[in-house]
Amino acid sequence: MRPALPILLIAAMAAHAQPPVPANPASQAARQWRQTHERAIVSEFFDLLAVPNIARDRPNIRRNADLIVKMLEKRGVKAQLVEQGPANPVVRGEIPTPGATRTIVFYAHYDGQPLDPKEWATPPFEPVLRDRSLEKDGRVVPLPAAGTPFDPESRIYARSASDDKAPILAIVTALDAIKAAGLKTKSNIRFVFEGEEEAGSINLEALLAAHKDLFTGDIWLICDGPVHQTRRQLVAFGARGVVGFDITIYGPRRELHSGHYGNWAPNPAMELVRLLASMKDDSGRVLVDRFYEGIEPLSETEKRAVAEAPAVDADLMRELWLGSTEGAPKKLVDLLQAPSFNIRGMASSRIGDQASNVIPSTASASIDMRLVKGMDHAKTIERVIDHIRKQSYFIVDADPSAEVRMAHPKIAKITGREGYNAARTSMDLPVSQEVIRVVESARGPSVKLPTMGGSVPLVMIERAVGTRTITIPIANHDNNQHSSNENLRIQNLWDGIELMAALLTM
Amino acid sequence: MRPALPILLIAAMAAHAQPPVPANPASQAARQWRQTHERAIVSEFFDLLAVPNIARDRPNIRRNADLIVKMLEKRGVKAQLVEQGPANPVVRGEIPTPGATRTIVFYAHYDGQPLDPKEWATPPFEPVLRDRSLEKDGRVVPLPAAGTPFDPESRIYARSASDDKAPILAIVTALDAIKAAGLKTKSNIRFVFEGEEEAGSINLEALLAAHKDLFTGDIWLICDGPVHQTRRQLVAFGARGVVGFDITIYGPRRELHSGHYGNWAPNPAMELVRLLASMKDDSGRVLVDRFYEGIEPLSETEKRAVAEAPAVDADLMRELWLGSTEGAPKKLVDLLQAPSFNIRGMASSRIGDQASNVIPSTASASIDMRLVKGMDHAKTIERVIDHIRKQSYFIVDADPSAEVRMAHPKIAKITGREGYNAARTSMDLPVSQEVIRVVESARGPSVKLPTMGGSVPLVMIERAVGTRTITIPIANHDNNQHSSNENLRIQNLWDGIELMAALLTM
Repeated sequence: MRPALPILLIAAMAAHAQPPVPANPASQAARQWRQTHERAIVSEFFDLLAVPNIARDRPNIRRNADLIVKMLEKRGVKAQLVEQGPANPVVRGEIPTPGATRTIVFYAHYDGQPLDPKEWATPPFEPVLRDRSLEKDGRVVPLPAAGTPFDPESRIYARSASDDKAPILAIVTALDAIKAAGLKTKSNIRFVFEGEEEAGSINLEALLAAHKDLFTGDIWLICDGPVHQTRRQLVAFGARGVVGFDITIYGPRRELHSGHYGNWAPNPAMELVRLLASMKDDSGRVLVDRFYEGIEPLSETEKRAVAEAPAVDADLMRELWLGSTEGAPKKLVDLLQAPSFNIRGMASSRIGDQASNVIPSTASASIDMRLVKGMDHAKTIERVIDHIRKQSYFIVDADPSAEVRMAHPKIAKITGREGYNAARTSMDLPVSQEVIRVVESARGPSVKLPTMGGSVPLVMIERAVGTRTITIPIANHDNNQHSSNENLRIQNLWDGIELMAALLTM
Repeated sequence: MRPALPILLIAAMAAHAQPPVPANPASQAARQWRQTHERAIVSEFFDLLAVPNIARDRPNIRRNADLIVKMLEKRGVKAQLVEQGPANPVVRGEIPTPGATRTIVFYAHYDGQPLDPKEWATPPFEPVLRDRSLEKDGRVVPLPAAGTPFDPESRIYARSASDDKAPILAIVTALDAIKAAGLKTKSNIRFVFEGEEEAGSINLEALLAAHKDLFTGDIWLICDGPVHQTRRQLVAFGARGVVGFDITIYGPRRELHSGHYGNWAPNPAMELVRLLASMKDDSGRVLVDRFYEGIEPLSETEKRAVAEAPAVDADLMRELWLGSTEGAPKKLVDLLQAPSFNIRGMASSRIGDQASNVIPSTASASIDMRLVKGMDHAKTIERVIDHIRKQSYFIVDADPSAEVRMAHPKIAKITGREGYNAARTSMDLPVSQEVIRVVESARGPSVKLPTMGGSVPLVMIERAVGTRTITIPIANHDNNQHSSNENLRIQNLWDGIELMAALLTM
């Protein structure tokens, strides 16, 4: 999952309490295995983290892929690299299960976010253990000797420690535990470890579609992202879609002296603010006609899940220095189930010390909209454009000529209409209910969300291989994902191993 | 005058027609003198233009001041440098006239706009003559020999050829002509040539106030700026005042992921556009309460002058690629008599390729307002702030603390409240009517404007020495003032000499 979940400082955490023994037998076996192999598990993880994994670094990407193939093969999993055009290799693994009636696909990605090593406290590809988080002045400590337990609050610092090599390590360790306990898989299992998710997964859909048989399954479990800010396990059944555009409004050919022309020459910044202000009301409701048309309502189960999700609003407001929220009194978790219209940025001439006494020549804004199930990204853009036309704008898709500018009182350039739709797997499906049961048998009560706020191109996967997706993250919420000093809390790794053991044997 | 009037390309100009003989005897004498001394006049001008005159270049500023003192003394004018604190020297000259009952003060400035020599076709302080404008592929030509007339459409290229050494040269030449014709001044005459106008005249008011007796007069004639775009003589009786401010609206402490927080976290860019949109309606009317209160209406004379001013709107719209104007169907000249509210610039996060999927942390705009007679700049800002308060904003003047941000749903920071009021000398005053008569006796029908669109701190002069001001420019409108390749059309210099001769003998 590329978009980072927030770092929320939850004051009161029962930090060092040992989690209760899980109900799930595979999770129990995973705990037992882990408790006697902590040092070996972390050492194997360090080896994987030591291989640089920025998507454009092709030689190292291949070293990662080869190493993961070896890690799978060591567990008896048939593994291969699947390559297609310019795509970084996808590591594919398979555990066929005689008599199984379904296939479960585990997805993770082995590439990491680009980085600037200067911003890191220790080099990003030289993993270290700290006794606690850097924010709490954690110090680098040696790995405990074999047989000595790790402090569960200690953290591994390295690029992709959480995003998204942690699930890979959790899966292979769970396989060890299952085997050692003499447990068996009940479903056919497939693994898909992508090598360019942080570069936008631009080749994934084509690769999957070209090798559909290798990748299809009854359900894809997307093992990526952080758990809930309360540290409870998160199960997300979808993600909002997204579509964005840039808009530019045209004023005079060149910046004009605001004294000599103020009141007469149209000010594109003023026209832009009036246009944007017409699109959303005070309460946050989008005023574009038919914007909300076609939205699939939440089911009773989904509504209940949202209502039961722990509220984090007050804590977040403190963390973010907010005196109000846009959709109050609705909670964040409610509002994320609805579409949004967001100004990502605006620019016109200059401000502050750089400002001149001018009427700007152009004014631009960058917009993104988050979509929910039932909205189409292309139609949504068209409805926005219709709205702009109704405000008397002539629409162009490139800088207009002098003739076009003189022929129309108001002109808006709209560019960049890419996007994709939301995905939402029904929580009422038997497989959804089963995943929830299995997750909770491993990890206790979970936070279940019909839709995450961020956007993940789940629809592309669903379309390419004809499947459904459920997202099951394991990283701590405060993992510095996408930033410097990315880290994984040891207890989250331990929990993840127990969770994967349960899911691998469902 | 610092703000540049527009360069308007008027296609049909009766370019080479000799202007009719002026009615004014001093103007007639000036023409006669000029026609027999063209080469000497331009040579003296070249000597003045060859001295670099950027305000911060103190040694050369002093060379300019000393040279102008000599030029005045050569005409028998008692001249001196007046210095005060950090101000560049003001050149002051005086022609006492026995029996005179009034004093007329001629103001010009000898410093020029800062420049980048690389942008100039020829070095800015090595004046040259071109046979026509650079835009018409004018070539450098030698100065005609003494006795050979200059092409009136040829142009002098140098920094300050128009802004604002031209009036100084026109004045001293007019003095030669008056003397040669045996004419006399009727009023006491004073000259004030400033040396830091292009640096903002920041010391002028204090210098004038400290030496009030040296500078006071019944009327100050501000000899600066370009004539009307139609090439008719302009007489301006005032200028709009100006006041500006910057506004910043606060959202979350840091940029937030628009997926994970969109709909919930307040978007400062959306709040800013809604706030700004509340301040002005579609027709250009400012919606701030009491914004227009106290405005002194134009007199019948002033209204008639505005109605008679030639319309340049259609030409300007073509030049500026405009398909509409804000205050249509009102004309530019009408709209400049009213106050304006202008967005100079806006910024929030990033746009285009640099845009991220974020909710911005802040959004800012820079505003200027042009004021007309009867409006007070400080009160106007207060009324705007009241308007912002009515939209539920808490107003601060520095970045608010976390506590302040959490205590208020909406916060706006307002900074930079400097400005000054408009000045407008009544066209009905006897001296105003006399100036118009004298100007038209020299130059034929003029364009008379109660107020120019741009802002000039005329009120500071009026306040410092207790006088009134009328602005009488001589440069061509297409003079590249404030830019590279500044130039003066020769005919404008000839016209200026005749105009100054008339005004010096009124």
